[in-house]
Amino acid sequence: MHASLTTGAAVRQACRSGAWRTQTSGLAAGYAQANLVILPAADAADFLLFCERNPKPCPLLDVTAPGDPTPRIAAPDADLRTDLPGYRVWRRGELVAEVSEIRDLWRDDLVAFLIGCSFTFEAALLREGVPVRHVELGRNVPMYRTNIPCTPAGRFHGPLVVSMRPMKPAEAIRAVEITSRFPAVHGAPVHWGDPLALGITALDQPDFGEAVPIYPGEQPVFWACGVTPQAAVMAAKPEFCITHQPGMMLVTDLRDADLAT
Amino acid sequence: MHASLTTGAAVRQACRSGAWRTQTSGLAAGYAQANLVILPAADAADFLLFCERNPKPCPLLDVTAPGDPTPRIAAPDADLRTDLPGYRVWRRGELVAEVSEIRDLWRDDLVAFLIGCSFTFEAALLREGVPVRHVELGRNVPMYRTNIPCTPAGRFHGPLVVSMRPMKPAEAIRAVEITSRFPAVHGAPVHWGDPLALGITALDQPDFGEAVPIYPGEQPVFWACGVTPQAAVMAAKPEFCITHQPGMMLVTDLRDADLAT
Repeated sequence: MHASLTTGAAVRQACRSGAWRTQTSGLAAGYAQANLVILPAADAADFLLFCERNPKPCPLLDVTAPGDPTPRIAAPDADLRTDLPGYRVWRRGELVAEVSEIRDLWRDDLVAFLIGCSFTFEAALLREGVPVRHVELGRNVPMYRTNIPCTPAGRFHGPLVVSMRPMKPAEAIRAVEITSRFPAVHGAPVHWGDPLALGITALDQPDFGEAVPIYPGEQPVFWACGVTPQAAVMAAKPEFCITHQPGMMLVTDLRDADLAT
Repeated sequence: MHASLTTGAAVRQACRSGAWRTQTSGLAAGYAQANLVILPAADAADFLLFCERNPKPCPLLDVTAPGDPTPRIAAPDADLRTDLPGYRVWRRGELVAEVSEIRDLWRDDLVAFLIGCSFTFEAALLREGVPVRHVELGRNVPMYRTNIPCTPAGRFHGPLVVSMRPMKPAEAIRAVEITSRFPAVHGAPVHWGDPLALGITALDQPDFGEAVPIYPGEQPVFWACGVTPQAAVMAAKPEFCITHQPGMMLVTDLRDADLAT
Protein backbone atom coordinates (compact mmCIF):
# COMPACT_ATOMS: atom_id res chain seq x y z
CA MET A 1 0.00 0.00 0.00
CA HIS A 2 2.60 2.52 1.21
CA ALA A 3 4.73 1.85 -1.87
CA SER A 4 1.92 2.80 -4.25
CA LEU A 5 1.22 6.13 -2.52
CA THR A 6 3.78 8.14 -4.48
CA THR A 7 1.76 11.29 -5.26
CA GLY A 8 -0.51 13.63 -3.37
CA ALA A 9 -3.44 12.51 -5.51
CA ALA A 10 -2.78 8.83 -4.73
CA VAL A 11 -2.66 9.45 -0.97
CA ARG A 12 -5.83 11.54 -1.07
CA GLN A 13 -7.66 8.84 -3.07
CA ALA A 14 -6.55 6.19 -0.55
CA CYS A 15 -7.89 8.35 2.28
CA ARG A 16 -11.14 9.02 0.43
CA SER A 17 -11.74 5.30 -0.16
CA GLY A 18 -10.93 4.44 3.43
CA ALA A 19 -7.85 2.42 2.47
CA TRP A 20 -5.39 4.68 4.40
CA ARG A 21 -6.22 5.58 8.00
CA THR A 22 -2.85 6.31 9.68
CA GLN A 23 -0.08 8.93 9.67
CA THR A 24 1.10 10.41 6.39
CA SER A 25 4.79 10.86 7.31
CA GLY A 26 6.96 9.33 4.60
CA LEU A 27 4.21 9.10 1.96
CA ALA A 28 4.48 10.71 -1.50
CA ALA A 29 8.08 11.85 -1.19
CA GLY A 30 8.55 15.28 -2.74
CA TYR A 31 4.95 16.40 -2.20
CA ALA A 32 4.28 19.02 0.47
CA GLN A 33 1.99 18.06 3.34
CA ALA A 34 -0.18 20.57 5.19
CA ASN A 35 -1.75 21.21 8.57
CA LEU A 36 -5.53 21.76 8.39
CA VAL A 37 -7.64 24.22 10.38
CA ILE A 38 -11.34 24.66 9.45
CA LEU A 39 -13.33 27.50 11.03
CA PRO A 40 -16.70 29.21 10.48
CA ALA A 41 -16.48 32.29 8.27
CA ALA A 42 -17.31 34.43 11.33
CA ASP A 43 -13.92 33.51 12.81
CA ALA A 44 -12.00 33.15 9.57
CA ALA A 45 -11.04 36.80 9.08
CA ASP A 46 -9.43 37.01 12.52
CA PHE A 47 -7.66 33.69 12.04
CA LEU A 48 -6.37 34.78 8.64
CA LEU A 49 -4.99 37.92 10.27
CA PHE A 50 -3.44 35.82 13.04
CA CYS A 51 -1.61 33.75 10.42
CA GLU A 52 -0.50 36.84 8.51
CA ARG A 53 0.84 38.38 11.73
CA ASN A 54 2.70 35.20 12.74
CA PRO A 55 4.11 33.88 9.46
CA LYS A 56 6.88 31.74 10.94
CA PRO A 57 4.58 29.41 12.92
CA CYS A 58 1.56 29.87 10.58
CA PRO A 59 2.75 29.92 6.95
CA LEU A 60 -0.37 29.74 4.75
CA LEU A 61 -0.26 27.44 1.74
CA ASP A 62 -3.92 27.93 0.81
CA VAL A 63 -7.22 29.32 2.16
CA THR A 64 -10.54 28.13 0.73
CA ALA A 65 -13.63 30.18 -0.15
CA PRO A 66 -16.48 29.82 2.41
CA GLY A 67 -18.30 26.52 1.85
CA ASP A 68 -15.83 25.29 -0.78
CA PRO A 69 -14.18 22.02 0.35
CA THR A 70 -11.49 22.23 -2.35
CA PRO A 71 -8.15 24.04 -1.89
CA ARG A 72 -7.87 25.44 -5.42
CA ILE A 73 -4.16 26.33 -5.15
CA ALA A 74 -2.67 23.48 -3.13
CA ALA A 75 -4.70 20.52 -4.46
CA PRO A 76 -7.34 21.50 -7.07
CA ASP A 77 -9.02 18.07 -7.18
CA ALA A 78 -9.00 17.41 -3.43
CA ASP A 79 -12.05 17.20 -1.17
CA LEU A 80 -11.03 18.34 2.31
CA ARG A 81 -14.05 16.49 3.78
CA THR A 82 -12.65 13.06 2.91
CA ASP A 83 -9.03 13.32 1.79
CA LEU A 84 -7.20 13.23 5.12
CA PRO A 85 -6.78 10.01 7.16
CA GLY A 86 -8.37 11.48 10.28
CA TYR A 87 -9.96 14.62 11.71
CA ARG A 88 -10.53 16.17 15.12
CA VAL A 89 -13.79 18.01 15.84
CA TRP A 90 -13.73 20.84 18.40
CA ARG A 91 -16.63 22.75 20.00
CA ARG A 92 -15.88 25.81 22.14
CA GLY A 93 -12.23 24.68 22.45
CA GLU A 94 -13.07 21.13 23.59
CA LEU A 95 -12.18 18.05 21.54
CA VAL A 96 -15.53 16.29 21.00
CA ALA A 97 -14.77 13.65 18.33
CA GLU A 98 -12.11 12.00 16.19
CA VAL A 99 -13.54 10.93 12.83
CA SER A 100 -12.33 9.62 9.47
CA GLU A 101 -14.38 11.97 7.30
CA ILE A 102 -16.41 15.14 7.84
CA ARG A 103 -19.03 15.09 5.09
CA ASP A 104 -21.89 15.22 7.60
CA LEU A 105 -20.26 18.08 9.50
CA TRP A 106 -19.58 20.30 6.50
CA ARG A 107 -21.33 23.69 6.39
CA ASP A 108 -21.71 26.41 3.81
CA ASP A 109 -19.85 28.89 6.03
CA LEU A 110 -16.71 26.84 6.70
CA VAL A 111 -13.30 28.14 5.61
CA ALA A 112 -10.26 25.83 5.48
CA PHE A 113 -6.69 26.95 6.16
CA LEU A 114 -3.77 24.87 4.92
CA ILE A 115 -0.60 25.64 6.87
CA GLY A 116 2.91 24.55 5.87
CA CYS A 117 4.44 21.54 7.62
CA SER A 118 8.04 20.82 8.62
CA PHE A 119 8.08 17.53 6.66
CA THR A 120 9.12 19.60 3.64
CA PHE A 121 12.21 21.09 5.23
CA GLU A 122 13.10 17.83 7.00
CA ALA A 123 13.21 16.14 3.59
CA ALA A 124 15.54 18.90 2.40
CA LEU A 125 17.78 18.51 5.48
CA LEU A 126 18.05 14.74 5.01
CA ARG A 127 18.74 15.16 1.29
CA GLU A 128 21.60 17.56 2.14
CA GLY A 129 23.08 15.15 4.67
CA VAL A 130 21.93 16.91 7.86
CA PRO A 131 20.72 14.21 10.29
CA VAL A 132 17.29 14.63 11.92
CA ARG A 133 17.20 12.79 15.24
CA HIS A 134 13.47 12.05 15.59
CA VAL A 135 13.35 10.73 12.02
CA GLU A 136 16.34 8.47 12.76
CA LEU A 137 14.55 7.18 15.85
CA GLY A 138 11.13 6.86 14.18
CA ARG A 139 9.52 9.23 16.68
CA ASN A 140 7.30 12.31 16.45
CA VAL A 141 9.28 15.55 16.76
CA PRO A 142 9.44 17.02 20.30
CA MET A 143 7.48 20.28 20.61
CA TYR A 144 7.39 22.85 23.39
CA ARG A 145 5.25 25.83 24.40
CA THR A 146 7.48 28.89 24.77
CA ASN A 147 7.14 32.09 26.79
CA ILE A 148 7.05 34.08 23.53
CA PRO A 149 3.54 35.34 22.76
CA CYS A 150 2.29 35.34 19.19
CA THR A 151 0.98 38.66 17.90
CA PRO A 152 -2.77 38.39 18.65
CA ALA A 153 -5.57 39.00 16.14
CA GLY A 154 -9.16 39.28 17.37
CA ARG A 155 -9.92 36.31 19.62
CA PHE A 156 -6.83 34.39 18.49
CA HIS A 157 -3.76 34.52 20.74
CA GLY A 158 -1.34 32.17 22.41
CA PRO A 159 2.30 31.20 22.83
CA LEU A 160 4.70 30.37 20.05
CA VAL A 161 5.11 26.57 19.97
CA VAL A 162 8.48 25.32 18.72
CA SER A 163 9.83 21.99 17.49
CA MET A 164 13.35 20.95 18.48
CA ARG A 165 16.05 19.06 16.57
CA PRO A 166 19.46 18.44 18.21
CA MET A 167 22.45 19.16 15.97
CA LYS A 168 26.17 19.79 16.04
CA PRO A 169 27.01 23.47 15.41
CA ALA A 170 28.20 22.94 11.82
CA GLU A 171 25.01 20.95 11.09
CA ALA A 172 22.90 23.69 12.67
CA ILE A 173 24.57 26.34 10.48
CA ARG A 174 23.86 24.21 7.40
CA ALA A 175 20.29 23.71 8.63
CA VAL A 176 19.80 27.48 8.87
CA GLU A 177 21.01 27.85 5.29
CA ILE A 178 18.71 25.08 4.04
CA THR A 179 15.56 25.90 5.98
CA SER A 180 15.80 29.65 5.34
CA ARG A 181 15.04 28.75 1.71
CA PHE A 182 11.63 27.42 2.83
CA PRO A 183 9.69 30.32 4.37
CA ALA A 184 6.41 28.57 3.43
CA VAL A 185 7.22 25.77 5.89
CA HIS A 186 8.48 27.72 8.94
CA GLY A 187 11.80 28.87 7.42
CA ALA A 188 14.96 29.29 9.51
CA PRO A 189 15.13 28.40 13.22
CA VAL A 190 13.95 30.92 15.80
CA HIS A 191 16.56 29.95 18.41
CA TRP A 192 19.45 27.64 19.20
CA GLY A 193 21.19 26.81 22.46
CA ASP A 194 19.84 27.63 25.92
CA PRO A 195 16.19 26.43 26.15
CA LEU A 196 15.57 28.76 29.12
CA ALA A 197 15.79 31.72 26.74
CA LEU A 198 12.44 30.47 25.40
CA GLY A 199 11.11 29.60 28.86
CA ILE A 200 11.58 25.87 28.27
CA THR A 201 12.71 24.21 31.51
CA ALA A 202 12.78 20.50 30.60
CA LEU A 203 13.78 19.35 27.13
CA ASP A 204 13.05 15.76 28.17
CA GLN A 205 9.41 16.65 28.82
CA PRO A 206 8.00 18.08 25.57
CA ASP A 207 4.47 19.50 25.60
CA PHE A 208 3.66 17.62 22.37
CA GLY A 209 5.40 14.78 20.49
CA GLU A 210 8.18 12.68 21.96
CA ALA A 211 11.51 13.51 23.62
CA VAL A 212 14.75 12.72 21.78
CA PRO A 213 18.29 12.42 23.20
CA ILE A 214 20.83 15.21 22.74
CA TYR A 215 24.34 13.81 22.31
CA PRO A 216 27.63 15.43 23.46
CA GLY A 217 28.68 18.27 21.17
CA GLU A 218 25.09 18.93 20.08
CA GLN A 219 22.84 21.88 20.87
CA PRO A 220 19.05 22.05 20.62
CA VAL A 221 17.86 23.98 17.56
CA PHE A 222 14.30 25.35 17.65
CA TRP A 223 11.91 26.02 14.76
CA ALA A 224 8.49 27.70 14.84
CA CYS A 225 5.93 24.89 14.75
CA GLY A 226 2.57 24.33 13.03
CA VAL A 227 1.04 23.33 16.38
CA THR A 228 1.08 27.07 17.22
CA PRO A 229 -2.13 27.82 15.25
CA GLN A 230 -3.89 24.82 16.81
CA ALA A 231 -2.94 26.08 20.26
CA ALA A 232 -4.32 29.51 19.33
CA VAL A 233 -7.58 27.92 18.16
CA MET A 234 -7.90 25.98 21.40
CA ALA A 235 -7.26 29.13 23.44
CA ALA A 236 -9.80 31.12 21.41
CA LYS A 237 -12.53 28.49 21.95
CA PRO A 238 -14.43 29.18 18.73
CA GLU A 239 -17.97 27.79 18.47
CA PHE A 240 -16.82 25.13 15.99
CA CYS A 241 -13.54 23.95 14.52
CA ILE A 242 -12.13 20.95 12.67
CA THR A 243 -8.42 20.09 12.43
CA HIS A 244 -6.38 17.13 11.19
CA GLN A 245 -5.42 14.45 13.69
CA PRO A 246 -1.75 14.72 14.70
CA GLY A 247 0.50 13.42 11.93
CA MET A 248 -2.44 12.81 9.57
CA MET A 249 -1.88 15.65 7.14
CA LEU A 250 -3.32 16.67 3.81
CA VAL A 251 -0.86 15.62 1.11
CA THR A 252 -1.04 18.41 -1.49
CA ASP A 253 -0.10 18.66 -5.16
CA LEU A 254 2.54 21.28 -4.26
CA ARG A 255 6.07 20.03 -4.70
CA ASP A 256 8.57 20.56 -1.87
CA ALA A 257 10.98 21.93 -4.47
CA ASP A 258 8.47 24.61 -5.52
CA LEU A 259 8.28 25.89 -1.95
CA ALA A 260 12.01 26.75 -1.95
CA THR A 261 12.97 30.37 -2.59
CA MET B 1 39.76 63.38 3.22
CA HIS B 2 37.81 60.33 4.41
CA ALA B 3 34.52 61.91 3.28
CA SER B 4 35.74 62.27 -0.31
CA LEU B 5 36.84 58.62 -0.61
CA THR B 6 33.47 57.27 -1.68
CA THR B 7 34.52 54.90 -4.48
CA GLY B 8 37.16 52.26 -5.01
CA ALA B 9 38.79 54.44 -7.66
CA ALA B 10 38.98 57.42 -5.29
CA VAL B 11 40.62 55.38 -2.53
CA ARG B 12 43.13 53.85 -4.95
CA GLN B 13 44.03 57.29 -6.34
CA ALA B 14 44.54 58.61 -2.79
CA CYS B 15 46.85 55.68 -2.04
CA ARG B 16 48.72 56.13 -5.34
CA SER B 17 49.33 59.83 -4.65
CA GLY B 18 50.46 59.14 -1.08
CA ALA B 19 47.50 61.02 0.42
CA TRP B 20 46.09 57.94 2.24
CA ARG B 21 48.45 55.81 4.32
CA THR B 22 46.24 54.12 6.95
CA GLN B 23 43.56 51.44 7.26
CA THR B 24 40.79 51.24 4.68
CA SER B 25 37.99 50.09 7.00
CA GLY B 26 34.94 52.32 6.52
CA LEU B 27 36.10 53.83 3.21
CA ALA B 28 34.04 53.69 0.00
CA ALA B 29 30.93 52.15 1.52
CA GLY B 30 29.41 49.56 -0.81
CA TYR B 31 32.70 48.71 -2.55
CA ALA B 32 34.29 45.34 -1.80
CA GLN B 33 37.76 45.33 -0.26
CA ALA B 34 40.28 42.55 -0.83
CA ASN B 35 43.21 40.82 0.82
CA LEU B 36 46.35 40.77 -1.35
CA VAL B 37 48.89 37.97 -1.77
CA ILE B 38 51.62 38.32 -4.44
CA LEU B 39 53.82 35.32 -5.27
CA PRO B 40 56.31 34.34 -7.98
CA ALA B 41 54.73 32.35 -10.81
CA ALA B 42 56.71 29.29 -9.65
CA ASP B 43 54.57 29.19 -6.50
CA ALA B 44 51.37 30.59 -7.98
CA ALA B 45 49.92 27.34 -9.33
CA ASP B 46 50.14 25.63 -5.94
CA PHE B 47 48.72 28.67 -4.18
CA LEU B 48 45.85 28.86 -6.65
CA LEU B 49 45.10 25.21 -5.95
CA PHE B 50 45.29 25.89 -2.20
CA CYS B 51 42.66 28.61 -2.58
CA GLU B 52 40.44 26.40 -4.74
CA ARG B 53 40.66 23.60 -2.18
CA ASN B 54 39.86 25.92 0.74
CA PRO B 55 37.20 28.25 -0.64
CA LYS B 56 35.72 29.34 2.70
CA PRO B 57 38.92 30.94 4.06
CA CYS B 58 40.37 31.75 0.60
CA PRO B 59 37.59 33.00 -1.70
CA LEU B 60 39.26 34.34 -4.84
CA LEU B 61 37.97 37.62 -6.26
CA ASP B 62 40.67 37.91 -8.94
CA VAL B 63 44.05 36.46 -10.02
CA THR B 64 46.37 38.46 -12.28
CA ALA B 65 48.41 37.26 -15.23
CA PRO B 66 52.17 36.91 -14.46
CA GLY B 67 53.82 40.33 -14.49
CA ASP B 68 50.53 42.22 -14.88
CA PRO B 69 49.98 44.57 -11.93
CA THR B 70 46.31 45.16 -12.82
CA PRO B 71 43.44 42.97 -11.58
CA ARG B 72 41.35 43.02 -14.77
CA ILE B 73 38.17 41.73 -13.12
CA ALA B 74 38.14 43.38 -9.71
CA ALA B 75 39.57 46.81 -10.57
CA PRO B 76 40.50 47.22 -14.26
CA ASP B 77 42.27 50.57 -13.82
CA ALA B 78 44.13 49.73 -10.62
CA ASP B 79 47.89 49.36 -10.20
CA LEU B 80 48.57 46.86 -7.43
CA ARG B 81 52.10 48.30 -7.01
CA THR B 82 50.81 51.63 -5.69
CA ASP B 83 47.10 51.44 -4.92
CA LEU B 84 47.11 50.02 -1.39
CA PRO B 85 48.04 52.14 1.67
CA GLY B 86 50.79 49.74 2.76
CA TYR B 87 52.55 46.48 1.91
CA ARG B 88 54.53 43.80 3.71
CA VAL B 89 57.51 42.18 2.00
CA TRP B 90 58.40 38.58 2.93
CA ARG B 91 61.49 36.51 2.05
CA ARG B 92 61.54 32.80 2.89
CA GLY B 93 58.62 33.33 5.32
CA GLU B 94 60.27 36.23 7.20
CA LEU B 95 58.84 39.73 7.23
CA VAL B 96 61.67 41.92 5.87
CA ALA B 97 60.01 45.29 5.17
CA GLU B 98 56.84 47.37 5.42
CA VAL B 99 56.58 49.80 2.51
CA SER B 100 54.03 52.17 0.98
CA GLU B 101 54.55 51.08 -2.64
CA ILE B 102 56.25 48.18 -4.42
CA ARG B 103 57.20 49.59 -7.84
CA ASP B 104 60.88 48.80 -7.29
CA LEU B 105 60.08 45.27 -6.12
CA TRP B 106 57.82 44.33 -9.02
CA ARG B 107 58.95 41.47 -11.27
CA ASP B 108 57.74 40.01 -14.54
CA ASP B 109 56.94 36.70 -12.87
CA LEU B 110 54.74 37.97 -10.05
CA VAL B 111 51.12 36.84 -9.75
CA ALA B 112 48.66 38.70 -7.50
CA PHE B 113 45.76 37.03 -5.70
CA LEU B 114 42.83 39.09 -4.44
CA ILE B 115 40.93 37.31 -1.70
CA GLY B 116 37.50 38.32 -0.36
CA CYS B 117 37.32 40.22 2.92
CA SER B 118 34.75 40.11 5.71
CA PHE B 119 34.12 43.90 5.47
CA THR B 120 31.53 43.07 2.79
CA PHE B 121 29.45 40.75 4.95
CA GLU B 122 29.87 42.96 8.03
CA ALA B 123 28.32 45.82 6.08
CA ALA B 124 25.43 43.52 5.18
CA LEU B 125 25.01 42.44 8.82
CA LEU B 126 24.93 46.04 10.06
CA ARG B 127 22.51 47.04 7.30
CA GLU B 128 20.16 44.22 8.41
CA GLY B 129 20.35 45.27 12.04
CA VAL B 130 22.70 42.54 13.31
CA PRO B 131 25.20 44.18 15.68
CA VAL B 132 28.93 43.52 15.15
CA ARG B 133 30.80 43.91 18.44
CA HIS B 134 34.28 44.85 17.22
CA VAL B 135 32.80 47.47 14.87
CA GLU B 136 30.79 48.92 17.77
CA LEU B 137 33.98 49.09 19.84
CA GLY B 138 36.20 50.41 17.03
CA ARG B 139 38.55 47.42 17.30
CA ASN B 140 40.05 44.95 14.83
CA VAL B 141 38.13 41.64 14.76
CA PRO B 142 39.55 38.90 17.04
CA MET B 143 41.07 36.01 15.08
CA TYR B 144 42.22 32.57 16.20
CA ARG B 145 44.25 29.69 14.79
CA THR B 146 42.16 26.50 14.97
CA ASN B 147 43.08 22.81 15.13
CA ILE B 148 41.37 22.28 11.75
CA PRO B 149 43.95 21.79 8.97
CA CYS B 150 43.33 23.32 5.58
CA THR B 151 43.49 20.93 2.63
CA PRO B 152 47.14 21.26 1.53
CA ALA B 153 48.31 22.00 -2.02
CA GLY B 154 51.99 21.62 -2.89
CA ARG B 155 54.04 23.54 -0.33
CA PHE B 156 51.02 25.43 1.02
CA HIS B 157 49.41 24.10 4.21
CA GLY B 158 48.36 25.35 7.61
CA PRO B 159 45.49 25.69 10.06
CA LEU B 160 42.14 27.29 9.34
CA VAL B 161 42.15 30.74 10.95
CA VAL B 162 38.75 32.04 12.10
CA SER B 163 37.34 35.40 13.08
CA MET B 164 34.85 35.61 15.96
CA ARG B 165 31.78 37.78 16.48
CA PRO B 166 29.67 37.35 19.66
CA MET B 167 25.91 37.25 19.05
CA LYS B 168 22.62 36.26 20.64
CA PRO B 169 21.18 33.06 19.11
CA ALA B 170 18.49 34.82 17.05
CA GLU B 171 21.14 37.26 15.74
CA ALA B 172 23.45 34.35 14.91
CA ILE B 173 20.69 32.60 12.95
CA ARG B 174 20.03 35.82 11.04
CA ALA B 175 23.79 36.18 10.48
CA VAL B 176 23.93 32.68 8.95
CA GLU B 177 21.12 33.63 6.58
CA ILE B 178 22.80 36.88 5.57
CA THR B 179 26.40 35.71 5.27
CA SER B 180 25.48 32.51 3.41
CA ARG B 181 24.50 34.83 0.55
CA PHE B 182 28.15 35.97 0.31
CA PRO B 183 30.28 32.91 -0.55
CA ALA B 184 32.86 35.22 -2.17
CA VAL B 185 33.62 36.75 1.23
CA HIS B 186 33.80 33.64 3.47
CA GLY B 187 30.06 32.83 3.43
CA ALA B 188 28.26 31.29 6.41
CA PRO B 189 30.00 30.65 9.75
CA VAL B 190 32.01 27.47 10.22
CA HIS B 191 31.09 27.07 13.91
CA TRP B 192 29.22 28.62 16.81
CA GLY B 193 29.33 27.90 20.53
CA ASP B 194 32.08 25.89 22.28
CA PRO B 195 35.49 27.28 21.18
CA LEU B 196 37.21 24.06 22.30
CA ALA B 197 35.57 22.26 19.39
CA LEU B 198 37.98 24.30 17.22
CA GLY B 199 40.89 23.86 19.63
CA ILE B 200 40.58 27.47 20.86
CA THR B 201 41.34 27.59 24.58
CA ALA B 202 41.24 31.33 25.36
CA LEU B 203 38.80 33.64 23.57
CA ASP B 204 40.30 36.60 25.45
CA GLN B 205 43.71 35.90 23.85
CA PRO B 206 43.22 36.02 20.07
CA ASP B 207 46.16 35.09 17.83
CA PHE B 208 45.50 38.15 15.64
CA GLY B 209 43.39 41.28 16.13
CA GLU B 210 41.89 42.36 19.44
CA ALA B 211 39.70 40.59 22.00
CA VAL B 212 36.07 41.69 22.44
CA PRO B 213 33.71 41.04 25.37
CA ILE B 214 30.99 38.38 25.13
CA TYR B 215 27.87 39.45 27.01
CA PRO B 216 25.39 37.17 28.86
CA GLY B 217 23.07 35.35 26.47
CA GLU B 218 25.60 35.55 23.63
CA GLN B 219 27.62 32.80 21.98
CA PRO B 220 30.80 33.15 19.93
CA VAL B 221 30.17 32.70 16.20
CA PHE B 222 33.17 31.80 14.03
CA TRP B 223 33.79 32.55 10.36
CA ALA B 224 36.63 31.36 8.12
CA CYS B 225 39.11 34.22 7.91
CA GLY B 226 41.27 35.76 5.18
CA VAL B 227 44.31 35.54 7.45
CA THR B 228 44.28 31.79 6.68
CA PRO B 229 46.04 32.19 3.29
CA GLN B 230 48.65 34.52 4.83
CA ALA B 231 49.34 31.91 7.53
CA ALA B 232 49.75 29.29 4.78
CA VAL B 233 52.17 31.53 2.92
CA MET B 234 54.23 32.10 6.07
CA ALA B 235 54.31 28.34 6.76
CA ALA B 236 55.35 27.59 3.17
CA LYS B 237 58.25 30.06 3.31
CA PRO B 238 58.28 30.90 -0.40
CA GLU B 239 61.38 32.63 -1.76
CA PHE B 240 59.50 35.94 -2.13
CA CYS B 241 56.05 37.24 -1.24
CA ILE B 242 54.24 40.55 -0.85
CA THR B 243 50.99 41.04 1.08
CA HIS B 244 48.93 44.02 2.21
CA GLN B 245 49.58 45.40 5.70
CA PRO B 246 46.82 44.35 8.16
CA GLY B 247 43.67 46.38 7.56
CA MET B 248 45.16 48.19 4.54
CA MET B 249 43.20 46.46 1.80
CA LEU B 250 42.75 46.99 -1.91
CA VAL B 251 39.41 48.74 -2.43
CA THR B 252 38.04 47.23 -5.64
CA ASP B 253 35.43 48.32 -8.18
CA LEU B 254 33.28 45.31 -7.24
CA ARG B 255 30.14 46.26 -5.39
CA ASP B 256 29.27 44.40 -2.18
CA ALA B 257 25.79 43.90 -3.59
CA ASP B 258 27.18 42.13 -6.66
CA LEU B 259 28.93 39.58 -4.44
CA ALA B 260 25.60 38.40 -2.98
CA THR B 261 24.05 35.26 -4.44
